Amino acid sequence: MNKAQLLLYCPDKPGIIAQVTNFITVNKGNIVYLDQYVDHVENIFFMRIEWELDQFLIPKEKIDDYFHTLYAQKYEMVYRLYFSDHKPRMAIFVSKLSHCLYDLLSRYTAGEWQVELPLIISNHPDLEPVAQRFGIPYYVFPITAENKAQQEQEEMRLLAENRINFIVLARYMQVISDRMIDAYPNRIINIHHSFLPAFVGAKPYHAAYTRGVKIIGATSHYVTGELDAGPIIEQDVVRITHKDTVEDLISKGKDLEKIVLSRAVHKHIERKCLAYKNRTIIFG
Amino acid sequence: MNKAQLLLYCPDKPGIIAQVTNFITVNKGNIVYLDQYVDHVENIFFMRIEWELDQFLIPKEKIDDYFHTLYAQKYEMVYRLYFSDHKPRMAIFVSKLSHCLYDLLSRYTAGEWQVELPLIISNHPDLEPVAQRFGIPYYVFPITAENKAQQEQEEMRLLAENRINFIVLARYMQVISDRMIDAYPNRIINIHHSFLPAFVGAKPYHAAYTRGVKIIGATSHYVTGELDAGPIIEQDVVRITHKDTVEDLISKGKDLEKIVLSRAVHKHIERKCLAYKNRTIIFG
Amino acid sequence: MNKAQLLLYCPDKPGIIAQVTNFITVNKGNIVYLDQYVDHVENIFFMRIEWELDQFLIPKEKIDDYFHTLYAQKYEMVYRLYFSDHKPRMAIFVSKLSHCLYDLLSRYTAGEWQVELPLIISNHPDLEPVAQRFGIPYYVFPITAENKAQQEQEEMRLLAENRINFIVLARYMQVISDRMIDAYPNRIINIHHSFLPAFVGAKPYHAAYTRGVKIIGATSHYVTGELDAGPIIEQDVVRITHKDTVEDLISKGKDLEKIVLSRAVHKHIERKCLAYKNRTIIFG
Amino acid sequence: MNKAQLLLYCPDKPGIIAQVTNFITVNKGNIVYLDQYVDHVENIFFMRIEWELDQFLIPKEKIDDYFHTLYAQKYEMVYRLYFSDHKPRMAIFVSKLSHCLYDLLSRYTAGEWQVELPLIISNHPDLEPVAQRFGIPYYVFPITAENKAQQEQEEMRLLAENRINFIVLARYMQVISDRMIDAYPNRIINIHHSFLPAFVGAKPYHAAYTRGVKIIGATSHYVTGELDAGPIIEQDVVRITHKDTVEDLISKGKDLEKIVLSRAVHKHIERKCLAYKNRTIIFG
Repeated sequence: MNKAQLLLYCPDKPGIIAQVTNFITVNKGNIVYLDQYVDHVENIFFMRIEWELDQFLIPKEKIDDYFHTLYAQKYEMVYRLYFSDHKPRMAIFVSKLSHCLYDLLSRYTAGEWQVELPLIISNHPDLEPVAQRFGIPYYVFPITAENKAQQEQEEMRLLAENRINFIVLARYMQVISDRMIDAYPNRIINIHHSFLPAFVGAKPYHAAYTRGVKIIGATSHYVTGELDAGPIIEQDVVRITHKDTVEDLISKGKDLEKIVLSRAVHKHIERKCLAYKNRTIIFG
Repeated sequence: MNKAQLLLYCPDKPGIIAQVTNFITVNKGNIVYLDQYVDHVENIFFMRIEWELDQFLIPKEKIDDYFHTLYAQKYEMVYRLYFSDHKPRMAIFVSKLSHCLYDLLSRYTAGEWQVELPLIISNHPDLEPVAQRFGIPYYVFPITAENKAQQEQEEMRLLAENRINFIVLARYMQVISDRMIDAYPNRIINIHHSFLPAFVGAKPYHAAYTRGVKIIGATSHYVTGELDAGPIIEQDVVRITHKDTVEDLISKGKDLEKIVLSRAVHKHIERKCLAYKNRTIIFG
Repeated sequence: MNKAQLLLYCPDKPGIIAQVTNFITVNKGNIVYLDQYVDHVENIFFMRIEWELDQFLIPKEKIDDYFHTLYAQKYEMVYRLYFSDHKPRMAIFVSKLSHCLYDLLSRYTAGEWQVELPLIISNHPDLEPVAQRFGIPYYVFPITAENKAQQEQEEMRLLAENRINFIVLARYMQVISDRMIDAYPNRIINIHHSFLPAFVGAKPYHAAYTRGVKIIGATSHYVTGELDAGPIIEQDVVRITHKDTVEDLISKGKDLEKIVLSRAVHKHIERKCLAYKNRTIIFG
Repeated sequence: MNKAQLLLYCPDKPGIIAQVTNFITVNKGNIVYLDQYVDHVENIFFMRIEWELDQFLIPKEKIDDYFHTLYAQKYEMVYRLYFSDHKPRMAIFVSKLSHCLYDLLSRYTAGEWQVELPLIISNHPDLEPVAQRFGIPYYVFPITAENKAQQEQEEMRLLAENRINFIVLARYMQVISDRMIDAYPNRIINIHHSFLPAFVGAKPYHAAYTRGVKIIGATSHYVTGELDAGPIIEQDVVRITHKDTVEDLISKGKDLEKIVLSRAVHKHIERKCLAYKNRTIIFG
């Protein structure tokens, strides 16, 4: 059954929940999900609400207009309206490491997620055989300092042609330029192979080994203009010991990376992530 | 600032959230907390809502009556109304092990929790010195098969005299009789030293060692008539290895037990636990 | 560089480590790994030791004979001798769920593990396309109450033909008969989708939901004649809340299952598991 | 039964284990613990070995001399010899927060640890009542920029008088000067309220909140001249959500801090920690 999914935030004021839930209920929408949260530091109200459309009196294509006129203006809401029958379209970017890509492809192929996957983009040809195994088109854009701007422009054209909604960087070892980030705000999901903000940048497992930490982690976040500093969606950790070599950390880290990235992608696909400033609201 | 705290559940119907939040808002109550959940299997709606009373138009002592008349009857709600300025009154039951007791007492004494602690009850005199260190009255009721019913009656009289709201079994090694359980439904919190439902009953660490598990746990739950089978409030685990002896499990388990019990007690004090059938809703 | 890998256990006596390490050292073997453990309850000594063979004075094919004569008899050792240049040969058994199979295949294909994978066996044809994607032969043996003994005989013939060293049950939904278990003692690795010994048997996620646990788990163990009761190799858990439906548990559990199974298989491939009675020694 | 406990490290060479274990065995020492590890990056051999002394042919007071002459010189070992019947003597430093202090005192008082606790030192009088509850002498040394050097000199005199072996900084909010650190190398244990190396320095929970992390941690480490950069003994983490305020992080962090600190202190008391450069070997 098709459902509307509404994510919003606005300055906190009395009566918002009552009004929004009343609007849906009196128009015969059956609310099947509601989660809200007030940030009392910033005084911002956040909500995710989902209702069934089969009896809803307002036609699907007019919901946005009505909601905007009746509530969003009044409460200065920033909001997004989705429909459960529209699958978001995902592009995956990879370089040479296959573990995250395999994990994403196996979930996609097994039908675990409500998502379309029209293409994979890479700066290297190495993982094309993996893409072929799963029948996903694979495009190679080698990147050099000289051609980077032009290649990204080609990539963006390809993404637009394929009506891509969001991008997953599955251990893609190239910094994304601001232009592409601006085109997909809070829609590019990266996996960083450390427990951020520890070990920003390259070779975090080597840095973790040198520092002698007892736990390593992985962090999935939305990409912003500042490296490894965007809003965090998901993190997880695993315990290590003095016996673990750098190679052991890399091996244990791979499991973390793929699980953490896939959890973040899943939350994004379910439209349960809302970024505000540099923090995320992850609805339950 | 004094706040009303309302926990409720009822058959799920459209409009409940809208009506309840509207009721509070139009009467000038400032909602500072709202969390709700629908169990779509049982079709039950659960909610916890909290609002500031300083501008609220309905006098504190009449809120219950109004809410009952206007909403609870209509929606067949089971509900509890609390006020943040009323500290719940807790009794602790112990036997001979001190680790959970110390943890509870140090939190109480440091003012971490909004709770009163009028007394500690034990079936052994061993921990009286601990109670004395913290200046809490300590009552000893030795239990035998013969005197159990009578001793519990004395305990219940003492609990009633001290207007106790809930009981914490901090490694109390006696089965509580049904009569006492019925007097404190979902108000007796136990800590079991295993990851329930694994290793029900006595000597769970020995059983865990024999089974060769790689992770041990502790479980805090409300006490019901069936041993170690009540609604679970909180669980946690810790990794072990083949090198850990039974004594190591007991030692590592103690840390788990005290943290898990204290988390559960904290949630209960904050009025964030709601038991329904054999499951708990733990509000965030 | 080729290495000998020796796993052993025997009644604990003074001098074993000194004698074994001395034997290797005086014969110019360079010890690169040593881990030992004494079970003081059973009074059993366990050891895993690994040394480089390039300078070792005893020819590779005579090491077993020498070790047996000089030490194993004397100390009543049970031992296994492996060589690092011999990759163990693994068979995977599956039914209809693909998540564990994908995880195993992607690690195998990416070259993460020193293992051969000559075949996949299933009681259903469903996952043949997955096997084909990775180019692994896939054999279907439908099982009924009537044909089970005969089909297993065929499977065992196929396993023998392919010189299979160990079997991984990647969510294989058939009980293995004692005859096959006896042929592969502590060489059949299963993944059970619960935190054993909680929720033995079928539908553990439904049972976990009903019990209202706050943490779910997965357990990888060697298969023995008693269902879900064999020596545990690895376990892990993930936190859940009252909001998680049975479907959510199944979804979250899948991630646990594949990671826990792969960790166990990895440990087995590295010859770091030793089962004694119903417990495992997992060398670090 | 009294036992010798030997911790050592030296350049890795063939035959060390064989020689040391042989030395103990031929002199009729019953080895009850042995754990060793080779750092193949630095090429350093680490070992902890423990043996019963009742039949040992070398008198207790001569073991150090014999071992030094026979092995330590030959292999350039750095080593420490302890005896299990000698309890180390611990001093606790605190400021105003009581949670770690209560945890240490309750373990000490319950007899969980083989340790003496002659005194508590603080720069504030606030926690004197806590010390009094447990009957431990409490000394106040208020610290200002002017008097710091002199006050530390007094503290060191007091520590020396009480033959203190190691110091626990239980949320002591003063930087220790190099002079005191040099007097207790790898013998001052601090708890830092973050997952180091993330959030070094003051107010880590505020920093964690601002960064929007999904997991917070605590780290116990030996104190060195560089702030929050010494060898890490133990770390642990707890999951948080967007709903957690800074106050919630502080509250959840307290539980982590006390458990992580107590685990580290326990490992130190058991003589199972060995620091080498900036990493620790934690024997199992």
